[in-house]
Amino acid sequence: MDKFFNPKSVAVIGASSDHKKVGFALVKNLSENKKIKVFSVNLENKEIPDDVDLAIIAVKAELVPQILEDCGKKQITNAIVISSGFKEMGPVGKELEDKVAAVAKQNNINLLGPNCLGIIDTKSDLNASFSPHKPLPGKIALLSQSGALGTAMLDWATGEGVGFSKFISLGNEAQLNEIDFLKYLKDDDDTDSILIYLEKVSDGGEFMRLVSEITKSKPVVILKAGVSEHGSKAVMSHTGSLVPSSMAFSGACKQAGAVTVSSLREFFNVAKLLSLGVKTNKPVQNLIILTNGGGPSVVAADLVDNSKSLSLVELNENTKEELKKVLPPMAAIGNPVDIIGDALSDRYEKALDVLCEVEEADGIIVMLTPQMMTEVEATAKLLMKYKNKKMILPVFMGGPSVQAGRVALIESGLVNFAFAKDVTEALDGLTSPPAPLLDAGEGRKKKTISDSIPTESLLHQMPFNDTSKILGDFNIFINGKFLKNKDELYNSLNEYGEGPYAIKMISPDIIHKTDLAAVALNIKNIEEAKKAWDQMHSINSKANIEGVLVQKMSAGREVIIGMKRDATFGPTILFGLGGILAEAIKDTTIRIAPISKDEALKMMQEIKGIKILQGMRGEPPVNFDLLADILVNLSRLALAHPEIKEIDLNPVMATDTSATIVDARVMM
Amino acid sequence: MDKFFNPKSVAVIGASSDHKKVGFALVKNLSENKKIKVFSVNLENKEIPDDVDLAIIAVKAELVPQILEDCGKKQITNAIVISSGFKEMGPVGKELEDKVAAVAKQNNINLLGPNCLGIIDTKSDLNASFSPHKPLPGKIALLSQSGALGTAMLDWATGEGVGFSKFISLGNEAQLNEIDFLKYLKDDDDTDSILIYLEKVSDGGEFMRLVSEITKSKPVVILKAGVSEHGSKAVMSHTGSLVPSSMAFSGACKQAGAVTVSSLREFFNVAKLLSLGVKTNKPVQNLIILTNGGGPSVVAADLVDNSKSLSLVELNENTKEELKKVLPPMAAIGNPVDIIGDALSDRYEKALDVLCEVEEADGIIVMLTPQMMTEVEATAKLLMKYKNKKMILPVFMGGPSVQAGRVALIESGLVNFAFAKDVTEALDGLTSPPAPLLDAGEGRKKKTISDSIPTESLLHQMPFNDTSKILGDFNIFINGKFLKNKDELYNSLNEYGEGPYAIKMISPDIIHKTDLAAVALNIKNIEEAKKAWDQMHSINSKANIEGVLVQKMSAGREVIIGMKRDATFGPTILFGLGGILAEAIKDTTIRIAPISKDEALKMMQEIKGIKILQGMRGEPPVNFDLLADILVNLSRLALAHPEIKEIDLNPVMATDTSATIVDARVMM
Repeated sequence: MDKFFNPKSVAVIGASSDHKKVGFALVKNLSENKKIKVFSVNLENKEIPDDVDLAIIAVKAELVPQILEDCGKKQITNAIVISSGFKEMGPVGKELEDKVAAVAKQNNINLLGPNCLGIIDTKSDLNASFSPHKPLPGKIALLSQSGALGTAMLDWATGEGVGFSKFISLGNEAQLNEIDFLKYLKDDDDTDSILIYLEKVSDGGEFMRLVSEITKSKPVVILKAGVSEHGSKAVMSHTGSLVPSSMAFSGACKQAGAVTVSSLREFFNVAKLLSLGVKTNKPVQNLIILTNGGGPSVVAADLVDNSKSLSLVELNENTKEELKKVLPPMAAIGNPVDIIGDALSDRYEKALDVLCEVEEADGIIVMLTPQMMTEVEATAKLLMKYKNKKMILPVFMGGPSVQAGRVALIESGLVNFAFAKDVTEALDGLTSPPAPLLDAGEGRKKKTISDSIPTESLLHQMPFNDTSKILGDFNIFINGKFLKNKDELYNSLNEYGEGPYAIKMISPDIIHKTDLAAVALNIKNIEEAKKAWDQMHSINSKANIEGVLVQKMSAGREVIIGMKRDATFGPTILFGLGGILAEAIKDTTIRIAPISKDEALKMMQEIKGIKILQGMRGEPPVNFDLLADILVNLSRLALAHPEIKEIDLNPVMATDTSATIVDARVMM
Repeated sequence: MDKFFNPKSVAVIGASSDHKKVGFALVKNLSENKKIKVFSVNLENKEIPDDVDLAIIAVKAELVPQILEDCGKKQITNAIVISSGFKEMGPVGKELEDKVAAVAKQNNINLLGPNCLGIIDTKSDLNASFSPHKPLPGKIALLSQSGALGTAMLDWATGEGVGFSKFISLGNEAQLNEIDFLKYLKDDDDTDSILIYLEKVSDGGEFMRLVSEITKSKPVVILKAGVSEHGSKAVMSHTGSLVPSSMAFSGACKQAGAVTVSSLREFFNVAKLLSLGVKTNKPVQNLIILTNGGGPSVVAADLVDNSKSLSLVELNENTKEELKKVLPPMAAIGNPVDIIGDALSDRYEKALDVLCEVEEADGIIVMLTPQMMTEVEATAKLLMKYKNKKMILPVFMGGPSVQAGRVALIESGLVNFAFAKDVTEALDGLTSPPAPLLDAGEGRKKKTISDSIPTESLLHQMPFNDTSKILGDFNIFINGKFLKNKDELYNSLNEYGEGPYAIKMISPDIIHKTDLAAVALNIKNIEEAKKAWDQMHSINSKANIEGVLVQKMSAGREVIIGMKRDATFGPTILFGLGGILAEAIKDTTIRIAPISKDEALKMMQEIKGIKILQGMRGEPPVNFDLLADILVNLSRLALAHPEIKEIDLNPVMATDTSATIVDARVMM
């Protein structure tokens, strides 16, 4: 793999002297590093030379297989296919792409592409792409399944002072995919953090395993596209790939400790934070706002207060005294610290000298508005000396008047955020610490045929006895006693003690029990029970009846636990609040099996109505421990039984001492 | 008021020759328009000349009252006090400010300030401020209660090609406030839309009346600061003002047809849309995305799909055929329309020729990523010819490589959005059409003493009979019969017909009925009723008992209706879902009294769990009409009875044919 990033000699196949051709740009870009030997191969110069570390192919699609064979003969082990005209063109292109992949394999060639932009490595000074924008050096690696996005990002980053270690345009991933490059980047010393633009995931399980490994030491930020109807259609149309469900994807990322963002704007702003050295496992949450203008700082304070995870540090009396000593009487010394409009750079300096000593603060948002006497450039330069003491987050607001300040910030190794919201939103996103992934080594499933998503109508329900047994094998117990005949009623009610009871008829013909008078609630005694038994049997006389389930009626707070299979990630485990409002607002959260107990406890906290489970109106909290056990056990069951497509435990009644599964449905 | 914007002669009092002084900047800025006579008044030049339209005062705070008197003697009717050192400094400053206001009034002077930046009018070419940044001409007026925010905004706008008609820095509003200038801007021909940065509102009722008038023809966009704990503290510290509750404010703006935003970023992006001519009463919602890069357009499609109000137009076969004719085979002709990476400007042109004819489309997001052959500048220039056919929303992504394009867009009278999210977020915000405000002429309350918010402990509950009467006067009826003695039980149960019934004890000593065994539910017959009566009376033998309320038990979906007073806006009307989950997720919405039935119907639709009321699981929708009547009537009651501080109708049980008020509490 290293030859992709550190080649000593490169052959450009399809090199051109036409300035408008990709083959020209490739040679030009590569030749900027004089230490790399660059060979041009084309119609005039047909021979591929010996001793080539890397071949870059930019010929017509149909010529690519032959060229790869030629490369193979010359013992070239690494190739980048820039050419387009493959899978993205439809079935014929797909066939050609398969051929390309096969030829590469036969010839032991590591293949990147086709339909990609290439690779850039700022450390080895390699621009093996036709992108005219070589980025600034930095410690962020960018992996992109879209070339256009990569181009825009690198260009943007150059203007904003954000540097990269490596850029890899993944193209169609005929052979090497995001997983292969992630493996390489995991141990790459030049890379401190990884940004990924993804449209599809090649192997869900492997992806999670790897990302969770990486996030132990390096933040991973993912922009997942195609999460909506039109978005996923657009992905299919331009890559011909299937898209994982967005809920499963977001659950998977949480488990693997990766940060997900939903817009390029946030992706770019997070990149700025990463370039400043913000880490996911050492989040910047407790903030001070320093400003020369009241209004903008009030809005910023609102944003911090209304964020998920950020807060403003309460300055102690000592700090306030120190500030009073160095600031004019009109300055506001709360937080925000407003050093007011006539502040010159020295006043910023005095305030920062004090504020950088505030231990509770993880970072300082330094806001500047261009007022008459504001020393924009001097203030920008000043910040350099504080950046090793505290995380300095500059927000110089305005246009032409602050331009010199922006340039000075970049020259100081800082960046500028145009708006406070850009910082707060990005910080808020970068706060999820990496999660230890359960069984990262083995448990996580490889994709199997059973993970393909069946249409609802092809599913059938598992008989109750099997359901009960299979759940029981994993310590998941359905409430109640299963009776085959009426005589058993007396004993079972007796065993339960005081009622009320519920009686439910079990039959493969009855899926929605309430629909067919197949359930009786609030049964008070044996007489009522017998009556209900008879009534049920007479109404459902034509149904194929397995038996009857007798339950003691359960009080508690209603939750839902479920399992479904995702085409990319395999079995997903769902937790949600029960009841009609929860259904109306879709109050659920998802993880990928298997899950640890810690993860199960964490996922429950994501529910919007979590306060209900924590206990409102004087109620004690539900027993999260018992619920977590069910989630964990269900995730194990899902892995052990690939023949099961869906499981619904609904409702589960939760109290401070119990978690009672009132109904269960297993679909195969 | 016109003399503020069109003065023929201006006296700068406190003029200075020191380049660093405000008094210098003022003279310099004013003098840029040679048609305006500018007089410098200072220690050397003490005499205020005759025939001055506008005085601008930039002397020490304590000198301001005397200067105003001098102005009065010279018949000057308009003055701007730039000087700071007033209310924002604390009690002593407040006293001085009151004196300034009084002197101005005595001398018939319209006073803007103190502690403000001044006024800019691009039409009359007046820069009566010390801001070095005179904005581009345009049709947007900017009102700001923060000078710093104004400075940053004008500077930013200059760089982004957004123009303004007028900029007014409101300062401390010792006399003239946002209302006075809104009145002027309402009829200002040069102003098409209004941006306001607000920290406080001088008169809630008048503000709403005026804004709802303006939004009939001009969009009003408000950034309200101080909506969080730290934010409102910061406002108080730098203006010494009380802040209205953020829920009341947001309700008021909805009713008045104004758009609210929560960050400067959104404020700025909305300004871009306004400068392109987007109107709130003709929202841009149905979009086409045109792009030369797949990835960014997929993300944009996701953003549109996941927005509140935007959607992608489904292109019909005819349009697709037209596109096929002019685009290469690899282009994606769904929506997004991806004309792929090698598109030159002519391909954008061909696609736009077709897409501008799509009638269903309100606007086209034109995305561009800088690829090798992309003609950034030519594409930017091309867009000019389409801007009168469709709303063109350019998103040229990147840094240095697209800079020339950005400049060309601005020169073409367009703007550029850095990210698709900047457009979608701003469009999503600008879609609320203006609402006709009920009784805009009279009904809305002026602030009264009764609107001051009392502490909870000072409130006392109104006796049941009075409560029942006062609600009844406004056609709000509490469910049930009020009985004084046990003998009446039989008749009232008889009248109701079949039970079950609820029996509640009414006593000023019992506020939370369930706490004290003062309520019995599910009473089935007269015997149980009598038993409950006796039990209640014996348990509560020491309470002062008014009587007993007998209700037929109501089924239905539980909602909450309430009234509370806001210090700025007067009585607010609340609607919310009942039940514990609704309480956990705070599912409520607020309006300011009085409300029209239309408004009442609209506010109910804002509830997160609205699906419950619309009917889930086969249920019919609740009778929104009956609920709306209660809301409207309650809002009338709130205005008629300022002595009432709070009303809770909780719960109200709603079905498809009824809205039953089960419990009511009125606090004075």
